[in-house]
This record gives sequence, structure tokens and C-alpha cells, in this order.
Amino acid sequence: MKKLTVAAFAMLAATATAFADPLPSWNPGDAKTRIVAFVDSVTDPDSPDYLDPAARVAVFDNDGTLWSEQPVYFQFLFAVDRVAAMAKEDPAIASSPILKAAAAGDIEGALAGGKKGLLEIIAVSHSGLTVTEFDVAVRDWLATARHPTKGRPYTDFVYQPMLELLRYLRDEGFTTYIVSGGGIHFIRAFAEDAYRVPPEQVIGSVGETSFEIRDGTPVIVKDPAIAFIDDKAGKPVAIDRVIGRRPIFAGGNSDGDLQMLQWTTGGAGPRFGLIVHHTDAAREWAYDRDSHIGRLDKALDAAAGNGWAVVDMKNDWRVVHPFELE
Amino acid sequence: MKKLTVAAFAMLAATATAFADPLPSWNPGDAKTRIVAFVDSVTDPDSPDYLDPAARVAVFDNDGTLWSEQPVYFQFLFAVDRVAAMAKEDPAIASSPILKAAAAGDIEGALAGGKKGLLEIIAVSHSGLTVTEFDVAVRDWLATARHPTKGRPYTDFVYQPMLELLRYLRDEGFTTYIVSGGGIHFIRAFAEDAYRVPPEQVIGSVGETSFEIRDGTPVIVKDPAIAFIDDKAGKPVAIDRVIGRRPIFAGGNSDGDLQMLQWTTGGAGPRFGLIVHHTDAAREWAYDRDSHIGRLDKALDAAAGNGWAVVDMKNDWRVVHPFELE
Repeated sequence: MKKLTVAAFAMLAATATAFADPLPSWNPGDAKTRIVAFVDSVTDPDSPDYLDPAARVAVFDNDGTLWSEQPVYFQFLFAVDRVAAMAKEDPAIASSPILKAAAAGDIEGALAGGKKGLLEIIAVSHSGLTVTEFDVAVRDWLATARHPTKGRPYTDFVYQPMLELLRYLRDEGFTTYIVSGGGIHFIRAFAEDAYRVPPEQVIGSVGETSFEIRDGTPVIVKDPAIAFIDDKAGKPVAIDRVIGRRPIFAGGNSDGDLQMLQWTTGGAGPRFGLIVHHTDAAREWAYDRDSHIGRLDKALDAAAGNGWAVVDMKNDWRVVHPFELE
Repeated sequence: MKKLTVAAFAMLAATATAFADPLPSWNPGDAKTRIVAFVDSVTDPDSPDYLDPAARVAVFDNDGTLWSEQPVYFQFLFAVDRVAAMAKEDPAIASSPILKAAAAGDIEGALAGGKKGLLEIIAVSHSGLTVTEFDVAVRDWLATARHPTKGRPYTDFVYQPMLELLRYLRDEGFTTYIVSGGGIHFIRAFAEDAYRVPPEQVIGSVGETSFEIRDGTPVIVKDPAIAFIDDKAGKPVAIDRVIGRRPIFAGGNSDGDLQMLQWTTGGAGPRFGLIVHHTDAAREWAYDRDSHIGRLDKALDAAAGNGWAVVDMKNDWRVVHPFELE
């Protein structure tokens, strides 16, 4: 009798799981319906579109797709904070107007140098440490720093519906990769805790690094030069280099993701392209074609013709950030 | 009674598996004993050295470690054959003495240009195709080409003991990566069939590639320039970029693997370094310090001090190539 009870409970639990909504923070609508239909079509062994788990490769941009990116990429705020901390130890580091602004914590001033200034700040703040030391520096910062306007830790700004989507895909045999313009070592420092994405499934921009033996101990040191920028056409190139398979599912939010979406959905067989459209000024931010960060223009125009699902954050997401559930 | 019999068979089968030799082509000896002891130490939950499967990362060089590399790297022979085939279509391709030699199938002449000549041949033979077309070209070549002195298909020259080691490690929860100086697209074309290593677990040298839309179809095209050479200090750098974890097991056969072995075994906790020493002139080739291919000099000197297992191919391997078992 006891055994029967255990078996009955197990059956009930299995049934509950089978019928549970895998995407509870997604409102009913076109985006959600299409995602579930796509996943069913490639995982149901009786479906004509069935694919082996090995072929179920899903790729996601990070900034603006898995977590927020306003008022500016969080990695840039880390870099500015780090320049400020470094300048306290050694004021000589603030050797240019841009670095002086960063050292003073002046974000607008630090941004005034455009792409060149940004690379200057990244070069100073992201080099000289071993990859292990850098990982610790990012983790320490994420544990203590607060968003400039919202006052919460940065990792609070992950998107609950995307966490559910990542988990749903993995539960259905997909491998979920991050393919980000952000720095690979920066993202790896939180991707496993925040998204359950392990280091080997993080693809990002990379700086040059050097292998050295320091006092008998082998180390890998981060150098100032940029080795590869994982943005725009760089994304399919990096996907080919690292994964060596063409994804069947891609999610992005900006023109930087256009080529990744084209590469993913331009192949034969079942394909899914998803664009997160930032339409929610109340719970997050509303921006697209004219934004200085995460501009969504060409990719939005391309969505209809390519059949990509455009997620309307305001209407499609019941919850945006996990803290709304607290 | 029938159920009991099924259960008894299942138990017997499990017992047989538990006691089966996972490395039947390895002769009893120091190398085999140490490999098995190491694997036991990191997989036994009661061991002080126990590690989560996620940390069980093993990296292997390819040429000379997983398959033969004499009289010259097989990829170079593919490149020469490809230049010859291309020159038949368009004789203008043989635009230099080195390319002329390659076009005539003259391996020695093609090698006479040293590293510069080699890069010239690689540039011509490995570019202009999409990654998909290149994959087909390599597969076609491997299916038809024969080793210049031994007359067998190249994939016949994988090492049976290393196939067993790869499988043993994977059965014990390891992830097995290839980290090769060879080209990533070349290796991926056979690694899954030959070694059961999927594309995303192949790390290698990479050429530049371009994302393009050709007649409405997105493609990735191989360009002539080299983007990254995955050799020597490049190996730990690539491991950090792609895997983002420090391996606990590394296998190599030449000085090109020295830094990968140092990086792998220089960390805290249980570590294993393995060097395949080519000592078998009868069944394979015998070479080390003075070889023009796969020179093993500094890494051999470093083995003792670092506790790396040096595998004596002649004495440690009962079988070298799978065809010996036919």
C-alpha cells in the first residue's frame, strides 16, 4: 500500500510537470504560442521537424536580451568604477580627459569620447590582471555595486521571462549559448549563477591574453588590446568558430544581433528568431530606433519578412524582473 | 521467475562492466596504472580529490596524440592535394614555385618553403569556400585519399589506446576537448566520426571568415588570412577563451603542447599530464628531439619534474592502430 502511494504521487508529480506552464511570466499571445509550438515541433519524435538534441542549439544576446542595458551597458559602469578605484591607488592612471572623467565617476564625461574613449576605458580597466583575478574583481563589483537610477544590484535586472525560456529550452534538450558583444570574462563571472549558463557556453568579445609563468606558477594575463569584437557580423563568425554548428534558435534585441538572426534562421528546416522589443517605460525602459544603446532599427524592419517573433515587453511579459515577484 | 532472471542478467552485466578493463589496448604498466588511479580519485565520491563532472575537463592535442602525423601533418597533404585539384581547373593558381610544387603533388618541394610556404599553401587551399563547402571537401578527401607510404585512408591512423582513453574519460563524466594546432574546420570534418568529439569540443587554429548574404542566402566564407594559431602558448589562451575552465587532464606529444600541459597541471588539486612518446618504428614511427614534425624536446625534459606520464608507445600500447585488430 505504501509503495502504491509513492507510485501514485510520482505519477501525479509527472502529470503536473507535463501540464505545467513552462513560461509562466509570458502572457498568452503570439510570441508565447509560437515558442511553444516550435519547441514541440523539434522535440516530438513523431514530428516531421524532429531534431536530435545535438542540433538543438539556441543562442542569445546578453545586454538587452537577457538583462537590462540602460542607462548604459553594465560592463561599462564596472569599467568606470574600476578606473576610479585604480586611480585612488595610482592617480597617474587618469592620464587623459576620458580617464579623468572615469576616475571621477563621471559617466557622461566618460561616454563623451565615443567608441575611442570607451576602448580606452576598457583597455585600462580590463588588463593587467590574470583571468582569475579579473573574475574575482567582477564578482566583487556585482556583489556591492548598485544601479545608478534604480538602486539595486545589477544582477537583479535579468529578465524573468528569459530565465524561463532558457530553462524551458534546456529542459527540452537544447544547449543555450550566450553570444554577446560584452566581454567574455565579464559575462562568465555571473552567467552561471544568473542564467545557469556555464563558462564554455559563453561567447563574447575577447581581449588579447598572454600565457606566462610567474614565480613558477602558470597564469593567463589580460592584455589591453582587443582580439575579437563579437558584434554584428562577428556573431555568426564566433558561433562558427566556437560552436561549429548552426543554431536553430536565436534571440536578440538590437541591430548588433541582425546577422546572428539571419545566420540562424536562414538555414533549412525549423528555425526560430526572437527579438525583445523594449516597449515598457514603466517596468523597464522603452527604446528602439533612436537609442544610443541597443539600437533596434534594421533588425526590426527585417523581422516581418523573416518571420521573427517580436516580443512586446509591455504586453507579452507578465513580469519583467524577478524582484517583481518578491 | 522470469523477472528474477532478467534482474540477475542485469546484475551480471553491471558487474561485468564494473570489472571490464576500460583500456584493453594499454599494456599493464606505470602509465595505465596512473591513469586509472587518477580517474578513480576524481570520480569516487568518497575520495578527497573528488570533482564535479563539470570540472572534469580533459584536453588533447590531435596530430601525434590522437592520430599519426608522419611523414607530415595530414592536413598539409590535404592542402597539397587541394592545390593540385584547383590547379587542374585553373592553372593560374600555381603562381609561385611553392604552389607549382604543390600543384605537381611534389610534397618535398611544397615543404621546401618552410613556414612561409606552408602558409601560402594553406591560404590558397583553405579559402574561397563556405565553411559548409570546406567541410564537404575534407570529407571527400578523407574518403578517397591514401597515406603516401602506408596506403591506407588517413583516419585509419587514429590510435586505438587513445580512442579507449577518450571513451573511458567520457564514461567517467569527463568532457574531452581537442586542442590542436591544426585547422578547426579540418578537424571537425572527422572528429565526431573518428573520436566521438562533437564540433563544439574541437579547438584549433582558425582562419579569418566572413559572414555574407549570397543571393539571399547567409553564408560564412573562409578567407586566406590566419586569425589565430592554436599552438604553444596559444593553446592555454584558446582553452581560456573557448572553455573558460582550467582542464585537469592534458595529453600531448610535442613541444607545441608544453604550455597546455603546464597550464593544466600547474593548478591546485588533482591534475594529470600525459605525453605520447613515439618510440615504435615498427608499428608507427620513432621520433622525438630531432624530428621536423612533432618535435618532443623541452616537453620531454619537463615531464619528470612535473610528474607527467610519458607513454612509451612501443611498450605501453598493445595495439597502436585499430586496423591491427582486424
